[in-house]
Amino acid sequence: MRLTIIGSGNVATHVAAALKNAGHHIIQVYSRDAHNAALLAYHVKAEPVNDLNDINADTGLFIIAVNDDAIESIAQALAVHNVPMVHTSGATPLSVLQKYSQNCGVFYPLQTFSKTREVDFRTVPLCLEASNDAVYPLITSLARDISNNVYDISSEQRKVLHLAAVFANNFPNYLYYAAQQIVEQHQMNFDMLRPLILETAQKVQQIPPQQAQTGPAVRDDQKTMAAHLALLPQNGDMHTLYELLSQLIIKMDIGKRRD
Amino acid sequence: MRLTIIGSGNVATHVAAALKNAGHHIIQVYSRDAHNAALLAYHVKAEPVNDLNDINADTGLFIIAVNDDAIESIAQALAVHNVPMVHTSGATPLSVLQKYSQNCGVFYPLQTFSKTREVDFRTVPLCLEASNDAVYPLITSLARDISNNVYDISSEQRKVLHLAAVFANNFPNYLYYAAQQIVEQHQMNFDMLRPLILETAQKVQQIPPQQAQTGPAVRDDQKTMAAHLALLPQNGDMHTLYELLSQLIIKMDIGKRRD
Repeated sequence: MRLTIIGSGNVATHVAAALKNAGHHIIQVYSRDAHNAALLAYHVKAEPVNDLNDINADTGLFIIAVNDDAIESIAQALAVHNVPMVHTSGATPLSVLQKYSQNCGVFYPLQTFSKTREVDFRTVPLCLEASNDAVYPLITSLARDISNNVYDISSEQRKVLHLAAVFANNFPNYLYYAAQQIVEQHQMNFDMLRPLILETAQKVQQIPPQQAQTGPAVRDDQKTMAAHLALLPQNGDMHTLYELLSQLIIKMDIGKRRD
Repeated sequence: MRLTIIGSGNVATHVAAALKNAGHHIIQVYSRDAHNAALLAYHVKAEPVNDLNDINADTGLFIIAVNDDAIESIAQALAVHNVPMVHTSGATPLSVLQKYSQNCGVFYPLQTFSKTREVDFRTVPLCLEASNDAVYPLITSLARDISNNVYDISSEQRKVLHLAAVFANNFPNYLYYAAQQIVEQHQMNFDMLRPLILETAQKVQQIPPQQAQTGPAVRDDQKTMAAHLALLPQNGDMHTLYELLSQLIIKMDIGKRRD
């Protein structure tokens, strides 16, 4: 299928590569930055464009993978071509596209992407929403070509999912940072914590988090928690964070466990 | 080397298995619970004992892998045999053993263990501390037999490491739980978040957490944060947690990033 990628960031890059690898023809890559357009276009053997006036209307789908703030103005500019369009954003409702297009949808990959890291796209959950029965089979078929985990998700659900992703990704990553600060302040290396971080995430691939919860808080081990708090500056951010998260873990009430 | 395992929990099980696989001879496994002693003893071809009076003194090392609260009384009971002893606890100083034994040390594996999950022990950081120059080479040699990541860590540092492990393991796992609650309250499945959780941990195996940080907070995207907060019950725990962690991420001050 002939496809057009709008955007050249992490999501655009990984989605374009996955679709190209699945045998689709990426005809153009648009970015307002000519250099970025050229880089991704080269990678997926497409024509780079950095002017929306140069967009080729002979395509099956516009895939808008740009910053949330830019989605609406791009959709408005592309509407003239009367080509189906999807965006890839977790935080943007379908209605933003529906203002300008009848044939539209959402193609949201629930994963964190970096240009420098390979991701096995077949494992990436793809959350789909379509404005009508014409767009639905089109994007479902595309989604199944690149992922084994395709879900129908409404705009309302996707908003919740995007919030949950903050708890599953952004916040744990911050805690890794906090752990790094703690060890480095005592002349130890973050490398020491890396296997633990990985195993923590691997455990919940198979078991529910409740069952994987260990540590002083879930045992309500006040002595260890007091010793930990004594190591963190009084009234400091880490002290507050430790207290709050420990209280929440105690409230989980999943019974006493051993480490 | 002839070794004796005191304890039959997760740490005892994994340490015993790793030492056995490295060619050491586990002569006895002690647990006050005869059934647990028998299970682990069978697994590592040792004699099970559930009475400290049955401990065989013809051994090279007592490895005390029991609950923190029980370490001291066990050490006191074993001291009569005049055999070197180590404990495996992150939260217990060496001094607890030194009260009863001159030849003692710490053999702390910095990893989360479950009996039902295989862990590649060669990747597990092993944190060592020894009371003297006789014990040091003994436990260093044992540690290197089973792990590629052997560190000399003082009791003071180990306390800090144990705290950091709470930030790297217990707290992220709680956030996985919170994310699960959020999606399940909206008829979605935790499976959708599992690939994201795994990739988040895999990313920081190679890059520092600062560089991996994404999401609305690090972009100081107030609009998205407000939309997220509107989904969480006012004055509820998740609301408080979201606000605190977002504020801390904003303070990271690592520059604006794109998702």
